[in-house]
Amino acid sequence: MKIAFIGAGNVAYHLAQNFDKNGHTITDIFSRNINHARALCQKLYDAKPTNKLDLSHSLAEVVFICLPDDALIYELKNMIFPPNAIVLHTSGSVGMDVFENTEIEKYGVFYPLQTFSKFVSLDMKFVPICLETSDENTEKIVEKLAFSICENIAFYDSEDRKKLHLAAVFACNFTNHLYAISYEILEKNGLSFELLKPLIQTTTQKALQNNPRNVQTGPAIRNDKKTMNEHLEILSNQPNLALLYEKLSENILFF
Amino acid sequence: MKIAFIGAGNVAYHLAQNFDKNGHTITDIFSRNINHARALCQKLYDAKPTNKLDLSHSLAEVVFICLPDDALIYELKNMIFPPNAIVLHTSGSVGMDVFENTEIEKYGVFYPLQTFSKFVSLDMKFVPICLETSDENTEKIVEKLAFSICENIAFYDSEDRKKLHLAAVFACNFTNHLYAISYEILEKNGLSFELLKPLIQTTTQKALQNNPRNVQTGPAIRNDKKTMNEHLEILSNQPNLALLYEKLSENILFF
Repeated sequence: MKIAFIGAGNVAYHLAQNFDKNGHTITDIFSRNINHARALCQKLYDAKPTNKLDLSHSLAEVVFICLPDDALIYELKNMIFPPNAIVLHTSGSVGMDVFENTEIEKYGVFYPLQTFSKFVSLDMKFVPICLETSDENTEKIVEKLAFSICENIAFYDSEDRKKLHLAAVFACNFTNHLYAISYEILEKNGLSFELLKPLIQTTTQKALQNNPRNVQTGPAIRNDKKTMNEHLEILSNQPNLALLYEKLSENILFF
Repeated sequence: MKIAFIGAGNVAYHLAQNFDKNGHTITDIFSRNINHARALCQKLYDAKPTNKLDLSHSLAEVVFICLPDDALIYELKNMIFPPNAIVLHTSGSVGMDVFENTEIEKYGVFYPLQTFSKFVSLDMKFVPICLETSDENTEKIVEKLAFSICENIAFYDSEDRKKLHLAAVFACNFTNHLYAISYEILEKNGLSFELLKPLIQTTTQKALQNNPRNVQTGPAIRNDKKTMNEHLEILSNQPNLALLYEKLSENILFF
């Protein structure tokens, strides 16, 4: 298929290259910053960079909007799409209803449940892709398109997708923040995060192979007040971390 | 060396088997529940199970105390050790000073920075072991003993070990709890935790290959209030989770 991208960030970067590799043609890459669009086009067979939101002359049959949620909502009304194109956004938290009251007739959501970074190339084959579409005909086309790069696709409505996204925030964004806190505690004390890596890897494996609730360890689940108080003592001049420690520990005990 | 274990839980289980495999002799396994001691002895070449805390007739040169922190502190005064044995505990959060004011002369801490589970066999080779000892002579013996099962050992005093343990609580225990929350959010809504596994794996890899602070993603770091409010709305009948969501998000933004 002929595909255009609005946005040249991490998601566009990986999706465009995966489609390109699998026999589709990327026609246009839009970015407010033309250099970002150019950088992505250089990775693709035949795409044109643009910084104008008018795609009325594009040959694209499908347009992917890969923008941050707020930009997606804000910019949507300014975009001009190719006639008859299917328009898809890639956000986990924005409902499909964002396309209602626009002139777009065929639309949907194409949400890859993965975190992308430009520096790490990624085969989309095993990335779960969550789909939702405006109508049955669009569903067939988008499903086929998704299957051309990925084996793991499923249809979820906007409500379920929001819950998936919420669960991902806990399991990934918040988890990463806890790693950042851990890193800082060690660094401040001249200790290395390297030391924790084997433990972090085992912990993650264990959680993925079980119901994580059943493999909880640590002072909170044992209600080991002595250790918890000593830890709070260490955090006494970082009240935000101390509060987080307390709330997480309470939650573990009463979960 | 000849080694006895007080405790037959996860840590004793793995340490005893690793020493046994590497040419040492496990003499005795103590557990209040004799069946636990027996179960571990069956995995070892020549160890005797016991439920009496009197090891005065044991041939052990080194005794490992592998008990939960509170049991370790509580039981220590009741234990009778072989004459001249080095006594080591394996806790990250109990100081070496727990051995002061006892009759034990040679002692130390042997803290493997890893989470153990009986169902998963584990080569100790790459597990960081944190050591601390009462005196130089004991240090030499314990260091050699550690090196016989592991390549990654280092000496830390009780203060540093406490900070390591605190960092591990954030990076592992709390992280596992976030996985448990995520699992529950999905399960409640008829969605599968399977969907998140590729994302969790990539997130962990990214955090381990970078300073996690620099790879933070998600609505909180973008200060995306619309998404955060929608997530809080989903959690509105689980006030503990909503509070945790808010505190973690605030902390990400102001970290």
